[in-house]
Amino acid sequence: MAETGIPADETARHAAKMARRKEAKDRALAEKTAEKGLIIVHTGAGKGKSSSGFGMILRCIAHRMPCAVVQFVKGARDTGERRLLTERFADLCQFHAMGEGFTWETQDRTRDIAAAENGWRKARDLIRDPAIRMVLLDEINIALRYGYLDADQVVAFLQAEKPPMTHVVLTGRNAPGALIEAADLVTEMTLVKHPFRAGIKGQPGVEF
Amino acid sequence: MAETGIPADETARHAAKMARRKEAKDRALAEKTAEKGLIIVHTGAGKGKSSSGFGMILRCIAHRMPCAVVQFVKGARDTGERRLLTERFADLCQFHAMGEGFTWETQDRTRDIAAAENGWRKARDLIRDPAIRMVLLDEINIALRYGYLDADQVVAFLQAEKPPMTHVVLTGRNAPGALIEAADLVTEMTLVKHPFRAGIKGQPGVEF
Repeated sequence: MAETGIPADETARHAAKMARRKEAKDRALAEKTAEKGLIIVHTGAGKGKSSSGFGMILRCIAHRMPCAVVQFVKGARDTGERRLLTERFADLCQFHAMGEGFTWETQDRTRDIAAAENGWRKARDLIRDPAIRMVLLDEINIALRYGYLDADQVVAFLQAEKPPMTHVVLTGRNAPGALIEAADLVTEMTLVKHPFRAGIKGQPGVEF
Repeated sequence: MAETGIPADETARHAAKMARRKEAKDRALAEKTAEKGLIIVHTGAGKGKSSSGFGMILRCIAHRMPCAVVQFVKGARDTGERRLLTERFADLCQFHAMGEGFTWETQDRTRDIAAAENGWRKARDLIRDPAIRMVLLDEINIALRYGYLDADQVVAFLQAEKPPMTHVVLTGRNAPGALIEAADLVTEMTLVKHPFRAGIKGQPGVEF
């Protein structure tokens, strides 16, 4: 090992440390035996909330697990994810764009509420269907934040009617406390640095 | 609008507020005209770092932008994302799994360093090719953290040789300061709640 430039004792120390770490990891893993359908929340001001939801949808498709997407805010726009899922994977993934744009686009609270309620009705049907293994409710937290949907009702429905093995992923800023409380897996995407601030616009591949 | 139960003056107030917000958003958007290839970092202890990287790869594929993935730590395991990308999208997305498992699996620092260096060599070739529009360096931050690769050298390469329109996405916990400094878009995935702690194991669709 001399040619790597690492002293032999450092290599041995590293091996011993990693052996201990592997033992701890294996022990922890052995205790993790349960499977269940998760309530997953992606919130925060940073990027990656919807992208990682779509990354999980891609994994479901790869495992041939039927899945579905309901978009609560986005609607009019032709995004890459929407095009790919509807053109290539309609057999495995239902895609419903129920939004009509951000609420400052429509400027019509009554219409926004109706759109959110339509989306939530569709979402309930999809979640109730036990054949569907993952339902992504993209940007639903925006609808909850503005009071277009009632957070307690959404949580009560998930707790009462979500089949045990179904994963439901809820994305968007400002997830309500009741939802975070009820969730199994919560990640806050924290904004550290964003190029919009440097005058860079949203770009294909990255943002849509 | 009486049937919605929302008083007319509240509806009008909402519309006025949203009109002001739209004006501000449109003004901000008008200033964002530039496009450039971004250095994107996903770090932090929370879930979603790799998933959102794969979500962006899915967007690139949808836009028919050639792209590539280099996995630095994962390797042996057959993940959903790997299977889908290699079986369905090999024409648009190169996939290179260069890792041999987490470093506590191999327990061999010399072998880990060699694997990381191989991965970085492959990554440099892919990044240099201006036809490839996005390169995802999955879990490279782990290799940087353990000193298997030198962060300053990685940053210097990106600054000197990344073609202007290529996006490079670097994921993994503990991204080094020099990389965060050099990046255009940085998100910290903050762990709020994780089901591993409740004895739930990693599940298909969600984790792989």
